[in-house]
Amino acid sequence: MNRSDALGRLRDVVGPDHVLTAPHDKEPYERDWRGRYRGAALAVVRPKSTDETARVVAICHEVHLVIVPQAGNTGLVGGAVPSGDAIVLNVGRMTKIRALDPINNAMVVDAGCVLQTIRDEADQHERYFPMYLGSVGSCQAGGLVSTNAGGTGVLRYGNMRDLVLGLEVVLPDGRVWNGLRALRKDNTGYDLKQLFIGAEGTLGVITGVVLKLFPRLTRSATAMVALGSVDKAIALLHRLQASVGNRVEAFEIMSRSQIDTVCRFGHGLKNPMPLEANWYALIEIADSDPDWDAAAQLERVLGQAAEAELLLDAVVASDLVKAERIWALRHNVSETNKHAGFTISNDTSVPISRVTQFIANVDARLAALKGATINHVGHIGDGNVHVVVVLSREIYTTPAACEATAAEVNLIVHEESVALDGSISAEHGIGQMHVDRLARFKPALDLELMRSMKALFDPLGLMNPGKIMSR
Amino acid sequence: MNRSDALGRLRDVVGPDHVLTAPHDKEPYERDWRGRYRGAALAVVRPKSTDETARVVAICHEVHLVIVPQAGNTGLVGGAVPSGDAIVLNVGRMTKIRALDPINNAMVVDAGCVLQTIRDEADQHERYFPMYLGSVGSCQAGGLVSTNAGGTGVLRYGNMRDLVLGLEVVLPDGRVWNGLRALRKDNTGYDLKQLFIGAEGTLGVITGVVLKLFPRLTRSATAMVALGSVDKAIALLHRLQASVGNRVEAFEIMSRSQIDTVCRFGHGLKNPMPLEANWYALIEIADSDPDWDAAAQLERVLGQAAEAELLLDAVVASDLVKAERIWALRHNVSETNKHAGFTISNDTSVPISRVTQFIANVDARLAALKGATINHVGHIGDGNVHVVVVLSREIYTTPAACEATAAEVNLIVHEESVALDGSISAEHGIGQMHVDRLARFKPALDLELMRSMKALFDPLGLMNPGKIMSR
Repeated sequence: MNRSDALGRLRDVVGPDHVLTAPHDKEPYERDWRGRYRGAALAVVRPKSTDETARVVAICHEVHLVIVPQAGNTGLVGGAVPSGDAIVLNVGRMTKIRALDPINNAMVVDAGCVLQTIRDEADQHERYFPMYLGSVGSCQAGGLVSTNAGGTGVLRYGNMRDLVLGLEVVLPDGRVWNGLRALRKDNTGYDLKQLFIGAEGTLGVITGVVLKLFPRLTRSATAMVALGSVDKAIALLHRLQASVGNRVEAFEIMSRSQIDTVCRFGHGLKNPMPLEANWYALIEIADSDPDWDAAAQLERVLGQAAEAELLLDAVVASDLVKAERIWALRHNVSETNKHAGFTISNDTSVPISRVTQFIANVDARLAALKGATINHVGHIGDGNVHVVVVLSREIYTTPAACEATAAEVNLIVHEESVALDGSISAEHGIGQMHVDRLARFKPALDLELMRSMKALFDPLGLMNPGKIMSR
Repeated sequence: MNRSDALGRLRDVVGPDHVLTAPHDKEPYERDWRGRYRGAALAVVRPKSTDETARVVAICHEVHLVIVPQAGNTGLVGGAVPSGDAIVLNVGRMTKIRALDPINNAMVVDAGCVLQTIRDEADQHERYFPMYLGSVGSCQAGGLVSTNAGGTGVLRYGNMRDLVLGLEVVLPDGRVWNGLRALRKDNTGYDLKQLFIGAEGTLGVITGVVLKLFPRLTRSATAMVALGSVDKAIALLHRLQASVGNRVEAFEIMSRSQIDTVCRFGHGLKNPMPLEANWYALIEIADSDPDWDAAAQLERVLGQAAEAELLLDAVVASDLVKAERIWALRHNVSETNKHAGFTISNDTSVPISRVTQFIANVDARLAALKGATINHVGHIGDGNVHVVVVLSREIYTTPAACEATAAEVNLIVHEESVALDGSISAEHGIGQMHVDRLARFKPALDLELMRSMKALFDPLGLMNPGKIMSR
């Protein structure tokens, strides 16, 4: 059977409307949303069910066609963009919420369910699904699992890995592995689902997920705090945790330079306090307890912290509108940095006790860089700092100049992270962006074990090749 | 090189005192603590370090000697007991606490560190390590990781898998995989440590672990509650969670029959309330907040629950001594059941919404059993119920009669669990006890994937063969 026969058979499986081959139909699926990566797919195939997905994969396996699994296509490292001749297998038509069991605090969803839909559905059953990130309105369950997504909720609820009870996966040969268990405890052999979480679609196509739910939050309080140093931010987080336990819902830090960029380039965004400190923390505490006065407790803790000279100034939002206004500063970081110039983003993590040293080392090495603003924004409780360098378009006038400096900056940030036992990709993954970097920094034995896992599950190398590791 | 040459080389590595070959020296390492399993080891080897462990494993690999990794040897399924001609590799001399970083809330320990020591060390740094189970004074880190241990803290903190940040593992060929990362977020390729957690020593020997720590708890309250049904217990748990969030530290249920057994056979143990209901819940709420009046909140919630007719009666412990007295009922279950007769224990889980049905189905099928007491005790928030059948020694007078009934009972409990999408081993693992049962109930594709993982990591089949799966 040749490839055009294969396309015919794929049309038989999913219907002719869902095998896209015209260039303008394929185009949105062949590139990432930031426009950094672009590939050319033989076709984009959009199955409606697990069964259809399995049959599509089996056909591709038979004729040795490469598959690039794709969900919401909101990734930052090109993991869902074809890098060669391939079928893009997009799960976006698989949008069923298969079941919601409020007593078991579990929900079964298709891989194409959008995160916002999942959160809304949970809310309607007085439950809470805590995963939250910028692309909440477009990212999908299958991608969240495949990239082991992070976001602002990791501090309290863990990564996506911690929110998955079960999985359904189409293996590279087209067989369906049904691991849709909804158990809190199950020690019957190797935990196979762990293999596919964070594997970026290189070991199979995720088609269904059992998600963990939590009690719905009913009380919360938000504050913005000015701080003299990153060390003080960490000390404040620990003091807060010692008081409210793990009711700390979010604790993000931003450098003054980053808030300054947001306020200058964000339409109507305002700093709720004078910009006189080097660092700011955005804090939310929340829980389900209807009798809890969250704002009073936050004020009390911040008052004690001020007396202990941990913080310089603090504003507690007196209502939800003011809280939204504080969080808008954080949520507009990517957008405003892009307006400010050419953005070089990083996504590194180090042990929390080493964040201060990491930032100092990076700042020292980047100090000589001309026409650049160094912004820091991060999930400090996870040791995950995004070092964002914004290059002035007046000085960096060509794409080549920008890219050359980007390569230089990224290497510095990665080197300093690895030197402090950190990670070069805390939450974004490797995709195609960091393949060479991973090959350089990951120990040889890790790479060997990863390659042998890949060869075991996908001996023909058909499942998202060139991602995480080179072929 | 023959095997006696190998023993000589092992002596060179760990010192002659730490290669035990005399029968009375080996004996404690050749059986489990309950005396259900007994094997015969060629030798018991007790290395002092990762390096020594690696050299021991390399020698065994070279001469094709089977290795049975062993830590505290407190398991319930014979997983650390040799089932044939083997070297027992006991990590009990590796007891270093390598590092404790209170700011990163992480601790690095040798595989032979005892759980109580780990908890004490954390406490000295105002931190909390939440794993807790009956064998706290003797179980060791390596075993907790290899079995993905559960216990009473899973409801709030998750299984052992959720408490591990990094691992160090000696692979079956003697190479050391260093995954001792202390990061909260790290998405740089496959998460290799997940493979070894819960693998029961069949893929390698765990030598070091990075553990997650939490803020120390300073406030708590304990209650015992009488309930009309398991459904009401689950509803009470949800009401409690809606009020105190995840400050619910433990929520265990016991059937009246179980409490009755504990009080009759436990020396001086007393029921703090009249035994008039069918079910009892033992509840603890706890947190780090020094301003929190935990007892007042627990009383408030239980009062509201009583008004809503969720519970029949409740006692809140007015001091720590009374709280200890309530928890003593739970902690003496295994001991007192053993005094009461021949004990048939089970460790199944189902989705929480199906626990009531599960217990009803099991009770119905066991009702005809003569001379037997059916006790239920369990971690209801995890859907994990231990069905314990105690056979009267007056009626079941021979070991053969006991064992025959045990086989019958276990099959019933397992069938009913699997019929409700449950697990035949929620927290104890498979070991050698459940190998045949797993082969019967696990889907063929799961078994195939597990076998291929095993073949990949341990092609010679030297690492704890016959555990989890037959050879």
